[in-house]
Amino acid sequence: MKKPISRYPVPEIKDLPEDMRERILKVQEKSGFVPNVFLVLAHRPDEFRAFFAYHDALMEKESGLTKAEREMIVVATSAANHCLYCVVAHGAILRIRAKNPLLSDQVATNYRKADITPRQVAMLDFAMKVSRESERVDEADFAAMRAAGFTEEDIWDTGAVAALFALSNRMANLTGMRPNDEFDALGRSPK
Amino acid sequence: MKKPISRYPVPEIKDLPEDMRERILKVQEKSGFVPNVFLVLAHRPDEFRAFFAYHDALMEKESGLTKAEREMIVVATSAANHCLYCVVAHGAILRIRAKNPLLSDQVATNYRKADITPRQVAMLDFAMKVSRESERVDEADFAAMRAAGFTEEDIWDTGAVAALFALSNRMANLTGMRPNDEFDALGRSPK
Amino acid sequence: MKKPISRYPVPEIKDLPEDMRERILKVQEKSGFVPNVFLVLAHRPDEFRAFFAYHDALMEKESGLTKAEREMIVVATSAANHCLYCVVAHGAILRIRAKNPLLSDQVATNYRKADITPRQVAMLDFAMKVSRESERVDEADFAAMRAAGFTEEDIWDTGAVAALFALSNRMANLTGMRPNDEFDALGRSPK
Amino acid sequence: MKKPISRYPVPEIKDLPEDMRERILKVQEKSGFVPNVFLVLAHRPDEFRAFFAYHDALMEKESGLTKAEREMIVVATSAANHCLYCVVAHGAILRIRAKNPLLSDQVATNYRKADITPRQVAMLDFAMKVSRESERVDEADFAAMRAAGFTEEDIWDTGAVAALFALSNRMANLTGMRPNDEFDALGRSPK
Amino acid sequence: MKKPISRYPVPEIKDLPEDMRERILKVQEKSGFVPNVFLVLAHRPDEFRAFFAYHDALMEKESGLTKAEREMIVVATSAANHCLYCVVAHGAILRIRAKNPLLSDQVATNYRKADITPRQVAMLDFAMKVSRESERVDEADFAAMRAAGFTEEDIWDTGAVAALFALSNRMANLTGMRPNDEFDALGRSPK
Amino acid sequence: MKKPISRYPVPEIKDLPEDMRERILKVQEKSGFVPNVFLVLAHRPDEFRAFFAYHDALMEKESGLTKAEREMIVVATSAANHCLYCVVAHGAILRIRAKNPLLSDQVATNYRKADITPRQVAMLDFAMKVSRESERVDEADFAAMRAAGFTEEDIWDTGAVAALFALSNRMANLTGMRPNDEFDALGRSPK
Repeated sequence: MKKPISRYPVPEIKDLPEDMRERILKVQEKSGFVPNVFLVLAHRPDEFRAFFAYHDALMEKESGLTKAEREMIVVATSAANHCLYCVVAHGAILRIRAKNPLLSDQVATNYRKADITPRQVAMLDFAMKVSRESERVDEADFAAMRAAGFTEEDIWDTGAVAALFALSNRMANLTGMRPNDEFDALGRSPK
Repeated sequence: MKKPISRYPVPEIKDLPEDMRERILKVQEKSGFVPNVFLVLAHRPDEFRAFFAYHDALMEKESGLTKAEREMIVVATSAANHCLYCVVAHGAILRIRAKNPLLSDQVATNYRKADITPRQVAMLDFAMKVSRESERVDEADFAAMRAAGFTEEDIWDTGAVAALFALSNRMANLTGMRPNDEFDALGRSPK
Repeated sequence: MKKPISRYPVPEIKDLPEDMRERILKVQEKSGFVPNVFLVLAHRPDEFRAFFAYHDALMEKESGLTKAEREMIVVATSAANHCLYCVVAHGAILRIRAKNPLLSDQVATNYRKADITPRQVAMLDFAMKVSRESERVDEADFAAMRAAGFTEEDIWDTGAVAALFALSNRMANLTGMRPNDEFDALGRSPK
Repeated sequence: MKKPISRYPVPEIKDLPEDMRERILKVQEKSGFVPNVFLVLAHRPDEFRAFFAYHDALMEKESGLTKAEREMIVVATSAANHCLYCVVAHGAILRIRAKNPLLSDQVATNYRKADITPRQVAMLDFAMKVSRESERVDEADFAAMRAAGFTEEDIWDTGAVAALFALSNRMANLTGMRPNDEFDALGRSPK
Repeated sequence: MKKPISRYPVPEIKDLPEDMRERILKVQEKSGFVPNVFLVLAHRPDEFRAFFAYHDALMEKESGLTKAEREMIVVATSAANHCLYCVVAHGAILRIRAKNPLLSDQVATNYRKADITPRQVAMLDFAMKVSRESERVDEADFAAMRAAGFTEEDIWDTGAVAALFALSNRMANLTGMRPNDEFDALGRSPK
Repeated sequence: MKKPISRYPVPEIKDLPEDMRERILKVQEKSGFVPNVFLVLAHRPDEFRAFFAYHDALMEKESGLTKAEREMIVVATSAANHCLYCVVAHGAILRIRAKNPLLSDQVATNYRKADITPRQVAMLDFAMKVSRESERVDEADFAAMRAAGFTEEDIWDTGAVAALFALSNRMANLTGMRPNDEFDALGRSPK
């Protein structure tokens, strides 16, 4: 009953263009496995490159949001979009980045009940509004973010991460992207 | 930032009526800890007794649904109701009952993408309809269950588990019931 | 075109276990007829007992909410769940308890337009939030209830009645439970 | 706690233009009271005249739909719009026209559970689609109506009654139109 | 691939009753073409007369709302109802009345982003509430309108225009009413 | 009352990095003006580059979908997301690419009523499902696309365009991106 990695053909790493192969092997070296998102999106090299360029521009750069906070946004909005790949993969990353094994399940199920700061609740409120009804984002939402201590650039980051994973969740749901089994053990409570 | 166990007073186990104390100590012996649902609902002994009587009548009895399948219903409907306690606690039980560390996150995020059988998808489709729009349950839904091999009594079980956790999820959300940290490690992948 | 009482077999009262038969006959004596909920749920004796134990624990006990107010909660939330049995049966009880023939139709259709007190509107706002989106119940909702004069225990009662009928409505919709024709005449305006 | 008839000024019948006064007195003679919709809409004579002209054109004329069936459409769609005036007033008319005291509560709460014919269910399915998501009405909806025995003109009638009460429900909700207490006793079960 | 004007028969103008023919010819003289709404609704003369009587009573009379403002209400609510005829036809009228070629697309897509005054935003907020969830219209909504400078009669006008087009949108969606191609060029930006 | 181009600072073209300046000037040369999306996103050069790389990978390449068809997807999904910039800007492009002045308003308001082929309706049904509830995309949706004549790669293109504009719409709504007035006149009906 195990689902395949993708509805689409998945290329062999060795057949990929040099730049993509290099990137993937670097991730593999660091994580011990190749997250399926790389293999699934590699079916379309130009989209692969654009996606990871966008990803790095938001997720790897310096920001008023910590990397754990950005992962919270990914997990909360991906759960709302019922994106299995992103909830499982970024849930693992969030557990590791926040050094908290409980946080991912909390944020995925109901971030209002999670063990996070009021500032982080405000951030997720904003991210969820961008994710679910961006047409209603208005000055009051910006004011609430400023009141929680965020700068204008932090607000862009918050909204842009939600926007990028709006795309990412849809691509994962379109392709039926399956999360690697390896994610499950990462960052969990000691047994 | 850690949230309390309940918005309401939580009684000491030693102060509880004999029958409730016994039940709780038996669970503690078996699990190694007292799941918070017992402590939170113990604030109201009569409701406690009725709730667990209902729970046992559905979750412990013989049924055409395996215990793991009944837990799938709990996890899928509780996720739709954003009930943190039930997703975490019953997610742990489902991992154990199904001997599958991946299943709970799959079912909680998007059961249509989970590694389950078509019969189980039909069961969750029916449970979700009872949970989310029971007013539209009709003969076609019963026919789909029968076509998937369920008896009339199995269909009652499926709907009744969804109905019981409609209650349970609301009580957990009302009281702000916090899942025990201990659930996290249960049934996970080996590290 | 008259619908049956239940999609499931309905036992004969004489064949029921003693405790259930007694309870049912007592109701029949008091009301002049046996409300179908007793017959429909009697198909599963353990669930029957748990349900009515829960029911009595909330609906019959002393509370800061009057019995009429608790019936308002039942009618308003059952109408939102399109539960024919509960709207008709508890609509009759509400008319009788409130000594007001108009109240049930008002509360079922749009409680915000009903001839009730601001305190009762606050109670129904809270009950509806528990019924329809309990995951969003937060401190502001508790504060609104306190401002309307409710104690913490009253708030539990309000939420718990909504939660119990979340279960009850789903069981009625699952079984296709038909309200007795006798309810219609109860508590109506004099002709 | 009794709500007023309207948020807007309600004219005296004697001060109304002749044609309106005549119409109202005729209704009063027939029913024994003046339904509040006449008084509330009379605040705007031109709109009053247009509304009742539209009403008569659909509700009084010969049609493949019986008058009781047209009232079913009014009750079902008005309940979905939570229009207190229309549910109570037309609920009374439906009870009388159908000579069935139970039908209005059934249709208002969940027409799929009502004691009506499959043809009438099809009619209400169509009416509800026009009322709630007319943008999705398509050939399949027309085909379903034809299959249930309705002509093209019957389909127009069904949709047009739903459309007229889309207007009417909104005017009643806008003005806070209160149903007359007298409606409650009409067409009920004998006591 | 061009869709027909109506799902129903469209009468010849010459065959229409005198009063209808006159009205239509007057519009044709003024606009240079006969808007399809006249031809489609003419299939039912009594409904035609009632509709246009209602229309004129609200759209042609003196009001605290300018004619352009009333068209804004039509465009915003018709877009929410996905009514192609009304968005295109009244979009053209709004461009002309407001002497602003950009306004219709703005109001149809997201009136909160349109180049309109705060007073007009308040008016459209109220109109949209009447159009989409009139059951929740309450004193706070009236207060917001008064704060924006509207009188009680202006508020009626706002709600009544939304209500009339709730009907109109449904009739257009029911009949599959096609907007005339001629509307497109009206009131656009100079090339 | 004219809204600004962006909530964020808009850079001068002359201050931009060479590659961005070149791209923008090329667009300006071709269109006669600089579409605001370039100026608004230029606030973040790395995101700008990633966005347009993704855009070109999907919108400029060879595909089983014509360029006009891809623009239909943009207009339909952007309208559902109430994204003013995308509806206006891509509405203009669609009018030009399809050589049909009426199509953009039709597709934005209700694509089911638009003058398009059944194949294009199937394409937009699929795109809308990816845009609005991608978690429910399943084999039946793929089958419907295949039945309409689309290849697996065409289906990816359809979903990916919807996914990219899920991102784009959110960025436009976040920044309050204003469409250039110049778009209005493009591709309209001759006057």
